[in-house]
Amino acid sequence: MDAVPDHDFSRRLTAVAGEAETALERLLGNDALPGEVVRPPRLMEAMRHAVLGGGKRLRPFLVVESAALFGATGHGPLLAGCALECLHCYSLVHDDLPSMDNDDLRRGRPTVHKAFDEATAILVGDALLTLAFDILAREEVHPDAHVRTALVRELGRAGGIGGMVGGQMLDLAAEGRFEAKRALSESEIITLQAMKTGALLRFACRAGGILGKADAAASAAIDRYGAIVGQAFQIADDLLDVEGDTATLGKAAGKDAAAGKGTLVTALGIEGAHAKLDALVAEAESVLKPFGAKADVLRATARFIANRRT
Amino acid sequence: MDAVPDHDFSRRLTAVAGEAETALERLLGNDALPGEVVRPPRLMEAMRHAVLGGGKRLRPFLVVESAALFGATGHGPLLAGCALECLHCYSLVHDDLPSMDNDDLRRGRPTVHKAFDEATAILVGDALLTLAFDILAREEVHPDAHVRTALVRELGRAGGIGGMVGGQMLDLAAEGRFEAKRALSESEIITLQAMKTGALLRFACRAGGILGKADAAASAAIDRYGAIVGQAFQIADDLLDVEGDTATLGKAAGKDAAAGKGTLVTALGIEGAHAKLDALVAEAESVLKPFGAKADVLRATARFIANRRT
Repeated sequence: MDAVPDHDFSRRLTAVAGEAETALERLLGNDALPGEVVRPPRLMEAMRHAVLGGGKRLRPFLVVESAALFGATGHGPLLAGCALECLHCYSLVHDDLPSMDNDDLRRGRPTVHKAFDEATAILVGDALLTLAFDILAREEVHPDAHVRTALVRELGRAGGIGGMVGGQMLDLAAEGRFEAKRALSESEIITLQAMKTGALLRFACRAGGILGKADAAASAAIDRYGAIVGQAFQIADDLLDVEGDTATLGKAAGKDAAAGKGTLVTALGIEGAHAKLDALVAEAESVLKPFGAKADVLRATARFIANRRT
Repeated sequence: MDAVPDHDFSRRLTAVAGEAETALERLLGNDALPGEVVRPPRLMEAMRHAVLGGGKRLRPFLVVESAALFGATGHGPLLAGCALECLHCYSLVHDDLPSMDNDDLRRGRPTVHKAFDEATAILVGDALLTLAFDILAREEVHPDAHVRTALVRELGRAGGIGGMVGGQMLDLAAEGRFEAKRALSESEIITLQAMKTGALLRFACRAGGILGKADAAASAAIDRYGAIVGQAFQIADDLLDVEGDTATLGKAAGKDAAAGKGTLVTALGIEGAHAKLDALVAEAESVLKPFGAKADVLRATARFIANRRT
């Protein structure tokens, strides 16, 4: 079950991140595409600040590796992964705004509203979100238009009302923004996190199944795998908030605790959270079993996500 | 050339607005769709505040009537029009934010950040933008997936970097937000407005051509028609800002002048702007000529847009 050594996995993660970086640079160039009038240089500069030069590109990696499991390789899955990365980056830009989480630092650099200004940051987010769907609809992503519409619709659900945006809304509510603050139950925390951070990671894996036209059983498996890594990612993130430090993270540590946010770490304790992570990695192994050695990269990915220290 | 009397046109506009309202109410219900976890009630309430109970629904109307010109009728074009309306409404919510145009009133009611709060308004905009693409990708819009991906891609271009979002960026720059303020040339004003407000109206008409699988010549004609009504809409809007009053408009009048914004009215004068509107209506007539009486509603629409007083 450990056929892909961790250093091979790391090399692969780095390689896909490099390819994604190059593709994102091209997507965020200053030259207007057909159907665009002009690309305002300041907007492009701020969008590049928001997207380029950082991040593990975990979401593109999950799209690429999930698609590869079903034989879909090359530029199409990479481009779909970049669409998702644009959407992810928009969410960071908007979440960092003063009226939202009010963060000054992101990946060790000033957030967009700090490096530019608030209006620019709002527009950068709007433009990245729009671009994500523009990209997914391009023929380069997949020759079959049904595949592209499925990707658009699924990303709409994962990123929208009942997914990421709704999760951020629930998170602000949990902070006591709109009503009296109260402790969330464990199941409320799981729902919130499944929406706020889980939905996009799960979409990344589902997208691989869609791009590779996986059958019903395989689709269900990759979907479950996506839900598992989504949950593991969040628990690892919450552990980092407790155990990490600002310099390593490139963003403020201890913010959740300071905000009094309920996480699974507060609900389960640090020991309990580590045990939960182990259980999730074991479940990922079990879900991937039918795919044999082909799924070794995804197995290593689950371990990596559960054990990440940055 | 005047086969559709204006009272028939008004009845039609009202009828489509009513159908759009019903469809939008359904789209913004509290029940989660497949792929959504939960729809947070506060988010839905704020989205309904942003979208329902107001507006002429000019964009859905243009989609529906342009599609009808090519024989595409029924729920599909209406739904595509509602997707566009969601995107339009998101842009109003974000443009009204304190760090953007800082407006307290919209359609005679408090803006979303006034009725709710700023974080909610940002999320409402993000969710509406996401929903627009989700809707366009649904099979109900059109059975042919190529049509749906074309709609998504074109809306991405019209609404994004080189369209509406970029236009708002240029508008903020023209106000002197990021650099020393300077008077825009007439051609710079035309570019800015073609992006900020023109692109979505033009998309509305193009969408009709896409839904009705118009041939190349007809596509070019409806595209040109869309560009004309887009420009006419903006000039009429700028005239209203000068000639209208706050009570009739349901939003602050005289704002552009107060902000010292360059418009075609300042560039051409009030007389010149009215003459330009007449010329645009005449060009619309000429562009629609090949379609004969079938295009009478679109002819009346051009007149209506040029002459509107609210």
